[in-house]
Amino acid sequence: MTLDEIYQKGTEVMEAKGLSDNLEGVETEFVLRHNEEIFTWYMFRQRAINSIEVTTRTRLLDVEFQVPIILSSMTNPIPQIEEDGLLKVARALKEVGAMMSLGTPVPSNLKELVEVGVPVIQTIKPFSDRSIVMKMISQAEDAGVTWVGIEVDAGLGTRRVRGCSPISADELKEIKQRISRPLILKGILSAWDAEKALEAGADIIVVSNHGGHTIDYLPHPLDVMDEIIGVIANEIPIIMDGGFRRGTDVLKGLAFGAQAIGLGRPILLGLAADGEEGVKAVITEMAEELRRVMTMTGVKDPASAHKGILL
Amino acid sequence: MTLDEIYQKGTEVMEAKGLSDNLEGVETEFVLRHNEEIFTWYMFRQRAINSIEVTTRTRLLDVEFQVPIILSSMTNPIPQIEEDGLLKVARALKEVGAMMSLGTPVPSNLKELVEVGVPVIQTIKPFSDRSIVMKMISQAEDAGVTWVGIEVDAGLGTRRVRGCSPISADELKEIKQRISRPLILKGILSAWDAEKALEAGADIIVVSNHGGHTIDYLPHPLDVMDEIIGVIANEIPIIMDGGFRRGTDVLKGLAFGAQAIGLGRPILLGLAADGEEGVKAVITEMAEELRRVMTMTGVKDPASAHKGILL
Amino acid sequence: MTLDEIYQKGTEVMEAKGLSDNLEGVETEFVLRHNEEIFTWYMFRQRAINSIEVTTRTRLLDVEFQVPIILSSMTNPIPQIEEDGLLKVARALKEVGAMMSLGTPVPSNLKELVEVGVPVIQTIKPFSDRSIVMKMISQAEDAGVTWVGIEVDAGLGTRRVRGCSPISADELKEIKQRISRPLILKGILSAWDAEKALEAGADIIVVSNHGGHTIDYLPHPLDVMDEIIGVIANEIPIIMDGGFRRGTDVLKGLAFGAQAIGLGRPILLGLAADGEEGVKAVITEMAEELRRVMTMTGVKDPASAHKGILL
Amino acid sequence: MTLDEIYQKGTEVMEAKGLSDNLEGVETEFVLRHNEEIFTWYMFRQRAINSIEVTTRTRLLDVEFQVPIILSSMTNPIPQIEEDGLLKVARALKEVGAMMSLGTPVPSNLKELVEVGVPVIQTIKPFSDRSIVMKMISQAEDAGVTWVGIEVDAGLGTRRVRGCSPISADELKEIKQRISRPLILKGILSAWDAEKALEAGADIIVVSNHGGHTIDYLPHPLDVMDEIIGVIANEIPIIMDGGFRRGTDVLKGLAFGAQAIGLGRPILLGLAADGEEGVKAVITEMAEELRRVMTMTGVKDPASAHKGILL
Repeated sequence: MTLDEIYQKGTEVMEAKGLSDNLEGVETEFVLRHNEEIFTWYMFRQRAINSIEVTTRTRLLDVEFQVPIILSSMTNPIPQIEEDGLLKVARALKEVGAMMSLGTPVPSNLKELVEVGVPVIQTIKPFSDRSIVMKMISQAEDAGVTWVGIEVDAGLGTRRVRGCSPISADELKEIKQRISRPLILKGILSAWDAEKALEAGADIIVVSNHGGHTIDYLPHPLDVMDEIIGVIANEIPIIMDGGFRRGTDVLKGLAFGAQAIGLGRPILLGLAADGEEGVKAVITEMAEELRRVMTMTGVKDPASAHKGILL
Repeated sequence: MTLDEIYQKGTEVMEAKGLSDNLEGVETEFVLRHNEEIFTWYMFRQRAINSIEVTTRTRLLDVEFQVPIILSSMTNPIPQIEEDGLLKVARALKEVGAMMSLGTPVPSNLKELVEVGVPVIQTIKPFSDRSIVMKMISQAEDAGVTWVGIEVDAGLGTRRVRGCSPISADELKEIKQRISRPLILKGILSAWDAEKALEAGADIIVVSNHGGHTIDYLPHPLDVMDEIIGVIANEIPIIMDGGFRRGTDVLKGLAFGAQAIGLGRPILLGLAADGEEGVKAVITEMAEELRRVMTMTGVKDPASAHKGILL
Repeated sequence: MTLDEIYQKGTEVMEAKGLSDNLEGVETEFVLRHNEEIFTWYMFRQRAINSIEVTTRTRLLDVEFQVPIILSSMTNPIPQIEEDGLLKVARALKEVGAMMSLGTPVPSNLKELVEVGVPVIQTIKPFSDRSIVMKMISQAEDAGVTWVGIEVDAGLGTRRVRGCSPISADELKEIKQRISRPLILKGILSAWDAEKALEAGADIIVVSNHGGHTIDYLPHPLDVMDEIIGVIANEIPIIMDGGFRRGTDVLKGLAFGAQAIGLGRPILLGLAADGEEGVKAVITEMAEELRRVMTMTGVKDPASAHKGILL
Repeated sequence: MTLDEIYQKGTEVMEAKGLSDNLEGVETEFVLRHNEEIFTWYMFRQRAINSIEVTTRTRLLDVEFQVPIILSSMTNPIPQIEEDGLLKVARALKEVGAMMSLGTPVPSNLKELVEVGVPVIQTIKPFSDRSIVMKMISQAEDAGVTWVGIEVDAGLGTRRVRGCSPISADELKEIKQRISRPLILKGILSAWDAEKALEAGADIIVVSNHGGHTIDYLPHPLDVMDEIIGVIANEIPIIMDGGFRRGTDVLKGLAFGAQAIGLGRPILLGLAADGEEGVKAVITEMAEELRRVMTMTGVKDPASAHKGILL
């Protein structure tokens, strides 16, 4: 199956199962339309002659990737598609050399997922009852996850999760001091929040508009990367998500300064279309497209992508 | 019902009652299309970390608002939808803490509406027979309205009201001297008219393209706010209307310098969809969306909105 | 009937009569789409307060207009719609105070049309056999037309007329010397051609893309007026045509520096929809819209329009 | 048949024969959409007065063209449409005075095609087994082709051809030294590759995005001609292809600095629609449109086109 076929079949399966709500966004769905359209604004400057051997391998903090791809934080939608979906996704990610990010609630079988051998991130929403947050962090650390994170942009919850309250830089600092793993802050979308993230001691950030699940009319990460990089410089790595569907989209994200790209709906659609194989096929296909376009633009590895390849 | 559901149901009810003419505009309806499209030009700069407690409460001259929302001047379409529609709308606005602006003709039960306790503005068209204008002003003052206004942009009437003549700054000055309430001038859409409004002694202005009911190809208030603020500065408050449908739209208007936002068709659709409850639901939903997006952009109250939150 | 109703009915009648070819353009029809779209790029700066008494009366050379409107040069399509169509159009134009421009062939009843009392322009295509051109000019002068013109942009003919050759400035000079009426040159669309027109002694020019009947991808007059006015300054008057359908379109053309506007398809549609009354209705409606928007933008007569009213 | 009719009929025939895959592109087909849209960004500055005699004749290196048109490199799709399609296309191109470019595989009847008398280019993909490349070059030279070329942008193959590897400037230099005909390098799309092409000793280049058959999101030649001309200056001639469908498109390519234009799908569609006559009709029609628009913009021959005619 091609990517288009997987996405189409996955969509049909999710509709048939009554799960297409997972593919929607808040209010006017401006965010979803914009997330899709923005990739058509950039083309590639080709370098066909003397083109080089490329690799999609990269390293973020202590994690080695075969492909610079991460499951965007989520939990609940996956078992709705297949009961043992989380395990299937974990295995697929492990096999292709990607990373897994889980959302709230913390999966009951988190330890089992970690044991699959895929590096796991557990992100947690800022529930108003902060003791729940601290308890989830402990659960995650006990299960042996690689990084622990907070979804700072879910300060008012999302379409599906309520009962959150905005979090402060001081609270984040406190969390940072209590954990033994690197701290990842997800949902940065402005220089302001990037500064607060650095101040709180984040080890890595995710630039994201939460896939259209929080508030409407948020910009796409590509819209704000320049102002964020103005703050972050090279101090900590940046992950980006939002509407990435093809290998060319991934290279655009890397060219803007991300070190890895999160995928949400594509993983759901792959799982719905063909289970574990579907998830692997999505990532394998995107990685193959990525390698082709890296080769033809002279980008030898993810860290070497730069805006000069864009037009 | 969500806002989308209310708008859809309201539209169906109005079509079924043969009232959809109220939702249309003059000539090519450029104004209606542009009023809708312009809100997609602006996105929000998120400030998720350290986000603050927000309130939608505000104050314009002597009026306290729970939400910075006003019924845009109209009379006739409302009783066409429900016979006692004006009373229902008045009660709904009172309950949510908004304001009511009535158009011409002056409703026969104006006094009854005022007694509901909602602050009421009575605006009057510049009928060629100026004695009618003065008589309507007296009626309104006698009924105890809060502010009295002139629709200066209806100088050639509207789609439904004829028999008007453009008004001069001198005539407006004369009206200002004869009334005891604050004077509101509606339909300002250029620096030129803003200057004339100040010169005439306006206490407040409404930047508006009259919802597409006067002439075609008028700009949206967002197109002209900068030139108008260049004249008005902070001397008097500014209200804005034109195509506002969501809480995010309201915040964009506030960010451009308005202190409150007028709603026309949304109130009609709410009334058509579910009577008094429908009107309340429209405003309550929009206010809830407004609060969410204020929180995530760090705007603590309507007066604190500024263009730096837009992208 | 409103303008929209006339245009719709006229289109249906022309289709039923197998005449819709007259409404089409060459090749990809880019010109027709662009002629329509360009009017949506400009909005009006409103001046509602102190608005003035306006008139649509104007004067070009020796001709008095009640409305600054001219039938765009054409002959053949009109009698195809109604056998005595030319006479009906002439009477309608006379009654509303507009002007009539005829194309080739020179109508056999030209004298009769002139006797209706409408000021008539006879424009002639640059037929390769220049003796035909000179004969037609004589015919027109003998019939008593007001102005005589050459369609310089039909140098390679049009979709319907072949056998033309590009004309030179020297040939145009020669024509100018042989005629006793003012010379109008139609189809100027660049500073280059404007200079040649002045050099040839033109008394008036028509900026036009020939309604999409010559070559594809020509700009609209609004695209090139600035460069043309850079050459023409105020030396001679400028007429403009191309996709004008509403009174607001007319004011945009005037604001860019035209003194009168040519209408082609709207007149055909008016004739098809309702004969002489239909033509009158089209112009009367457009003039009424024009008066309204002139009033609300503070333009006291066609010659006073300027780009400051546009946004 | 008009061009539109040929394109429509050709498309229908190809669909009926199950060959529409030849009309598609890789991944999201951004390239195909962009190749079509970009021509709508440019209009023509008309010069109707004093217009001159034009010719479409031109010369590139040692080849005389009646029309500046070349079949874009391809082999396989043509015999799929008609068994003796290559011969038919060769005859049609010979008759109208255009040039033929063949792709890989080298046609078995290459000598027969050359004997038709049309100047022939044989381009070769950079197959990983370079001995195949050298063998194909020998075959082409033995058959008496006019120019020999390498498709440098097919370094990772195309949708239909695999087993290629990126080529280096050194390898190209070696090929240049071993051949006796001029070397044409196809698939240049950046200043970088233009420099490498000069360095390798190319006698002519083709600026091309390979009709959407290699990687997605490549720019159109018009997007990158300025940077390429900044490198190439007037040292060697430039051919361009990508979405050209009309005579006006051809003039836009020439105005940007190409000396001849390649056609791919239009030739396939002409062949499918009406065999040899269809191919001739496509080129004859486009040449006629080209002559008309050259006349009206004052471009006396292909080499005289310049960006000043565009708007």
